[in-house]
Amino acid sequence: MTDAARVVIIGAGFGGLTAAKHLEKHDVDVVVIDKNNYHSFLPLLYQVATAGLNPADVGYPVRGLFRRRQRVLFRQGEVTGVDWERRLVHLHEEDDVAFDYLIVAAGATANFFAIPGAERYSYPLYTMSDALRVRNHLLSLFEEADAKPSLIADGILNIVVVGGGPTGVEVAGAVAELVSKVLDRDFHDLDLSVTRVILLERGESLLAPFDPDLQEYTVQTLEKMGVEVRLGTSVTRIAEDRVVLADGSTIPTRMVVWAAGIRAQDVAEELGVERGAGGRIVVEPDLSIPGHEEAFAIGDIADIADGSGGRLPQLAQVALQGGRFAADQILRTLAGESRQVFHYKDKGIMATIGRRAAVTQLAGGATIKGYPAWLAWLMLHLVYLIGARNRFSVMLNWAWNYLTWDTGPRLILSPEEPPPGADGGAGTESAASARGHTR
Amino acid sequence: MTDAARVVIIGAGFGGLTAAKHLEKHDVDVVVIDKNNYHSFLPLLYQVATAGLNPADVGYPVRGLFRRRQRVLFRQGEVTGVDWERRLVHLHEEDDVAFDYLIVAAGATANFFAIPGAERYSYPLYTMSDALRVRNHLLSLFEEADAKPSLIADGILNIVVVGGGPTGVEVAGAVAELVSKVLDRDFHDLDLSVTRVILLERGESLLAPFDPDLQEYTVQTLEKMGVEVRLGTSVTRIAEDRVVLADGSTIPTRMVVWAAGIRAQDVAEELGVERGAGGRIVVEPDLSIPGHEEAFAIGDIADIADGSGGRLPQLAQVALQGGRFAADQILRTLAGESRQVFHYKDKGIMATIGRRAAVTQLAGGATIKGYPAWLAWLMLHLVYLIGARNRFSVMLNWAWNYLTWDTGPRLILSPEEPPPGADGGAGTESAASARGHTR
Repeated sequence: MTDAARVVIIGAGFGGLTAAKHLEKHDVDVVVIDKNNYHSFLPLLYQVATAGLNPADVGYPVRGLFRRRQRVLFRQGEVTGVDWERRLVHLHEEDDVAFDYLIVAAGATANFFAIPGAERYSYPLYTMSDALRVRNHLLSLFEEADAKPSLIADGILNIVVVGGGPTGVEVAGAVAELVSKVLDRDFHDLDLSVTRVILLERGESLLAPFDPDLQEYTVQTLEKMGVEVRLGTSVTRIAEDRVVLADGSTIPTRMVVWAAGIRAQDVAEELGVERGAGGRIVVEPDLSIPGHEEAFAIGDIADIADGSGGRLPQLAQVALQGGRFAADQILRTLAGESRQVFHYKDKGIMATIGRRAAVTQLAGGATIKGYPAWLAWLMLHLVYLIGARNRFSVMLNWAWNYLTWDTGPRLILSPEEPPPGADGGAGTESAASARGHTR
Repeated sequence: MTDAARVVIIGAGFGGLTAAKHLEKHDVDVVVIDKNNYHSFLPLLYQVATAGLNPADVGYPVRGLFRRRQRVLFRQGEVTGVDWERRLVHLHEEDDVAFDYLIVAAGATANFFAIPGAERYSYPLYTMSDALRVRNHLLSLFEEADAKPSLIADGILNIVVVGGGPTGVEVAGAVAELVSKVLDRDFHDLDLSVTRVILLERGESLLAPFDPDLQEYTVQTLEKMGVEVRLGTSVTRIAEDRVVLADGSTIPTRMVVWAAGIRAQDVAEELGVERGAGGRIVVEPDLSIPGHEEAFAIGDIADIADGSGGRLPQLAQVALQGGRFAADQILRTLAGESRQVFHYKDKGIMATIGRRAAVTQLAGGATIKGYPAWLAWLMLHLVYLIGARNRFSVMLNWAWNYLTWDTGPRLILSPEEPPPGADGGAGTESAASARGHTR
């Protein structure tokens, strides 16, 4: 470390990495902190969860991104708080990290909205660990059904997805394809047509922010793929073996994927700053945290006014642009220049439903659907994916899966399994959950 | 299932899969049973453990191998016993599987030789889960050292490998290369030259069955790579933070890789049959189990006489040839022909030490070492690797790593981490162990 100003960035997601990448070319020291030693490309997590991609395809070691930048350091750790006076970031069981400038970009986590049982029994899908848990559990259910077909009557092959936003739509579509195209050829003895994929959405449409025409197309496409789409359907409780709906009816199931919404990461709470909707950190027009002009909040963890009374959505583009902007403000401050006002440039939104089926809505309002939208989605995700190796690997995996319907990574990997002869404890219980559902 | 004879195969390793692949072309029904839903290509596990390859590169879903063979079924499950009279295989919490012929090919597991602490504190390397645990822990130690450099004095960067056979040599070499070539460029702030990789071997040479010239070359190569090779060194105890040697001295360490030997899988015990060295199942000259001519034991779990008073070694080739042979004997019996005597055809042995360094000993006694042996090793492993996709993926990974020294999969993945907000229990403790060493 030099005598230059030190910028500490909490979070190696889109926002944090964009800020670091912008700062690395300038005369500042940078420390990136993340709970994981890798960046997770969240838009493709659902493909890890549905056995289409490997974790290493969508995760990239943070240190690998800054190998040639001696002044960018990485620290794996969990932030437990900030000492604003002494300008220190506290980490769980690790030495403090001092900062001159701070960028909080820790992202979001699942919001269970206090629905009983949701936190305990459902499977969220916002981290790599989540994705592996979903994959292991999903594949294990089919193995279990094969070994004990009597369980099918108990709903073991009912897969429920809660939430009709992009994540919910993508997961429901991918699970339906996994079952009908991939697993169906794997299980010679099991009639997989009994599998039900049920997508529950509280509102009256899927993909709320999209054009009604695209919403309608999405419902129709999912239904053609065999997904049961149930709009206007609220979940009131989740138990080990069923979902209870607002009308009192139940769906027997052993797998509920939770895609119903997000809230700010817990670290937002630890900072002692003002928070807005979903626990997000309220920011000034320059994205700085009120009362701490040396600190910024960006991306999903920031509550950013959209200039017309609303808040900016929690999208990759908002994080990318915010990361670049916050880095710029720090450089401007160091250069003695005044701060600017953040203006988000909407580039549109997109979601994929299944093979050759996606929806895209451009900022101007123009819409694309079907095959061209799907191709656009593929291209864009390859471009934004971090790391040449990962791009190459994802492209090859996609090509292989496309041509063969034989996805490679459908392995049930449970490192939770105790080492041979381990004397029980945590390991044993976790191993049980690999086949059971005692989470 | 048809009226044809049903062959049940326990274990989807080299032996079991070879038998199944041979039988699939004939008029028999086959059921392959394995604890995992995938085959593990064991010779490359150490590269998963040292972040060179992905789990999906060396694991292949068993069902994927028999997609076009309706008469080969797979069952994921743990065998708990065999009812010889009723010809049933019992599985843990699953329906029984009936057989006419049985092939036991469940392989081996780590043998800790009752050394105190070995089972509890060391990291074996015989399964995919083992490999992921080694990788997570190994990479975590470096992150921990970076976050708290004071831990280095306590030996946190001392990596101890116990056992100087092929696995121990391969792991020690791969760890040394990972540290000096890959991690050294990742950690800008940490002087990784303090890392120690220590290979302990009880005997007076590494790679016991190899020619002395190759053994000597192996020691020299490892030492050039920075590995401390300590021959004639027995471990008497392993604790959380150190290894105790026979001379009473200790090595402080938080990572002991156990590569000191194997014994038969536990299932060998459950069968109620005669067992030999290392708990292996004693077999007749036709590989059938004494008293159960409808049952065979092959590969690492079988105790096979070598015809000159010794036993065949636990090698892939023995399993491959045994699998083919047992399948043949079943077909001969069905055709009313007499059984044959198994003759192992030794094709030689090989082990890799590091980049451009391997040793090969052909059956005739000829030896190759260095670059040509390494190329031979690479080629042979690509050929024997199961699945075209995996071959392709491994080849690409090797090429990338070779050219860039930037191995992709150095992610610390711990699906043990509790889901956001989970209420403790098994998950929490496991998550702690991802950074700590409370196993």
